[in-house]
Amino acid sequence: MKQLLAMISVSTLVVFTSAHATSWQALPDKAPAPANNPTTAAKVELGKTLYFDPRISSTGTVSCNSCHNVMEGGDDSRPNSMGVNGQTGGRGAPTVWNAAFYSTQFWDGRANTLEDQAKGPMTNPIEMGMKNHDLVMQRVRSMDGYKTMFKTAFGDSKMTIDQAAMAIAAYERTLITPDSAYDRYVKGDKKALTSQQVKGMNLFAELGCTSCHSGPAFNGQAGVKLGTPVLMKFPTFTDNSYVKKYDLASDKGRENVTGKADDNNLFRTPTLRNIAVTAPYFHNGKVVTLDEAVKVMAKTQLNIDLNASQAKNLVAFLESLTGPFPQQTMPRLPVTSGKSVVVE
Amino acid sequence: MKQLLAMISVSTLVVFTSAHATSWQALPDKAPAPANNPTTAAKVELGKTLYFDPRISSTGTVSCNSCHNVMEGGDDSRPNSMGVNGQTGGRGAPTVWNAAFYSTQFWDGRANTLEDQAKGPMTNPIEMGMKNHDLVMQRVRSMDGYKTMFKTAFGDSKMTIDQAAMAIAAYERTLITPDSAYDRYVKGDKKALTSQQVKGMNLFAELGCTSCHSGPAFNGQAGVKLGTPVLMKFPTFTDNSYVKKYDLASDKGRENVTGKADDNNLFRTPTLRNIAVTAPYFHNGKVVTLDEAVKVMAKTQLNIDLNASQAKNLVAFLESLTGPFPQQTMPRLPVTSGKSVVVE
Repeated sequence: MKQLLAMISVSTLVVFTSAHATSWQALPDKAPAPANNPTTAAKVELGKTLYFDPRISSTGTVSCNSCHNVMEGGDDSRPNSMGVNGQTGGRGAPTVWNAAFYSTQFWDGRANTLEDQAKGPMTNPIEMGMKNHDLVMQRVRSMDGYKTMFKTAFGDSKMTIDQAAMAIAAYERTLITPDSAYDRYVKGDKKALTSQQVKGMNLFAELGCTSCHSGPAFNGQAGVKLGTPVLMKFPTFTDNSYVKKYDLASDKGRENVTGKADDNNLFRTPTLRNIAVTAPYFHNGKVVTLDEAVKVMAKTQLNIDLNASQAKNLVAFLESLTGPFPQQTMPRLPVTSGKSVVVE
Repeated sequence: MKQLLAMISVSTLVVFTSAHATSWQALPDKAPAPANNPTTAAKVELGKTLYFDPRISSTGTVSCNSCHNVMEGGDDSRPNSMGVNGQTGGRGAPTVWNAAFYSTQFWDGRANTLEDQAKGPMTNPIEMGMKNHDLVMQRVRSMDGYKTMFKTAFGDSKMTIDQAAMAIAAYERTLITPDSAYDRYVKGDKKALTSQQVKGMNLFAELGCTSCHSGPAFNGQAGVKLGTPVLMKFPTFTDNSYVKKYDLASDKGRENVTGKADDNNLFRTPTLRNIAVTAPYFHNGKVVTLDEAVKVMAKTQLNIDLNASQAKNLVAFLESLTGPFPQQTMPRLPVTSGKSVVVE
């Protein structure tokens, strides 16, 4: 464990939980919201509408939901995401479900808040591809339905990009899954998990997975101040065949953000909530199955070779972290009567 | 009028309504379903799930809903639709709302039924891009959730592409908008339309728009036997500036299907239901506003130059054909636990 800690960048906060002292925590029923953006029904409704609106991408084909599909596991089932005009980047889309429980956003923690994150993809040329946020809001402002929704949500007629981001973030804070089998087990329903899942749960702590994947969201970020990246070197142990096989070391991770060599291969510890429904795995999506993913993790992060039975038990436990997903109504996207909104 | 009729291909059925005898009809509260595919709740639920599932496209990014977005006007706000890898074709996506009231499907009527239509885009290389329907169903079969849904909907475990198409068609038959301002007006609520809309409605009949756009769906296809294309030459009158300006004559329309020169430029008469929320206009989406679209129609189909006031009144009437759209819940897309579904 000392070795692990030594490899972590000094700029990084590490939440360390000993296997023996593991305290299992259920997910809160409500996600925390920052003081300057309390969650309201009007903001959530506006945010959901914007989240599903592909017309705020250059081609009119990519919405937030395209890559972070809430009807799936909050991701897109792809190794890397696909933006406008079929372009792809090098990383997979992290799930939006329970993203509210992160202390920073993106694989490299480059955005402090959900509000900050929401604006990024809109103007990323290989994601939603809009030239700038003014053009995004120009499209939004052209639709009367949005005017009313912004007014209701924010009490003024400004319709700014920051308001749009606040609304999207407010919606995302409703995308949580606090009633999984694991949660019910932790709250006292001892029948909620199978005996195999309980075995996996104990193993998860014994092996030291909880060193990073701790707390209610299994991301080590509970109680961490918003804006503080909780990062880990991945891969930590490189003397194994996985690193080459799955190309695990070529993405510089946090180093791309800070420019510091010390930050090479540092990535945000991802939540394990809904991990069974968000294949393929890791920042580059190169690992297709969860069974393989836990073996890769054990080897590259803990230098442990799992046997088949251990891997199966861990997977069974991780499956207990799935859903249930709240039923949602579809938003109705506003229009400009009789006029094209998407003009490339 | 004689001139119009003379230009119509003999292979085409034409429903002709004199302006003076126009009978205004409300949309039925239920769409007709073929005897071999009665609409059931289980089929509709399965169909909705498949309709929203992007994983049955090669890239995992394009679902039926991508181009026929039911959260919008049932289309995609684009001049031409965009399929996998950013590819585009030459035509715009017709709205799925009220598609159940067509006697054939596609702009050129090349599919007889909604069931036939549903299968086309899946294997079209520039739409959903799957190599064949077996591969589509291989992905669907890999997900346990779908197994249950097919079993419930069809009572067997076959999971065929035809069953998938039947389910999608069943869902689409629920996508109707029978309670527009126009419908309420026709049913007796004389306050449902503004005086301008009533002016536009009368003008619509007087000018002869009802020659083609007749019946409850304004597509001349009420009572027409399923599988019978109702087509019209567009443009009929070519001696005007619109044909060149909007490139109206280069798409051969029905001729592409039959190979017959007589079928050149023949297109299915589209519904006018929700036309105000489905800009841009016509098969090629070259006309950006509804105001311009009615002028183009009057000139190219009736050889009439509308003045500004006439166009405005017609647009006001057409706006009365919008929605309301039933609220829908989002489907939850099945998964294969811990395994990638999309493998290109």
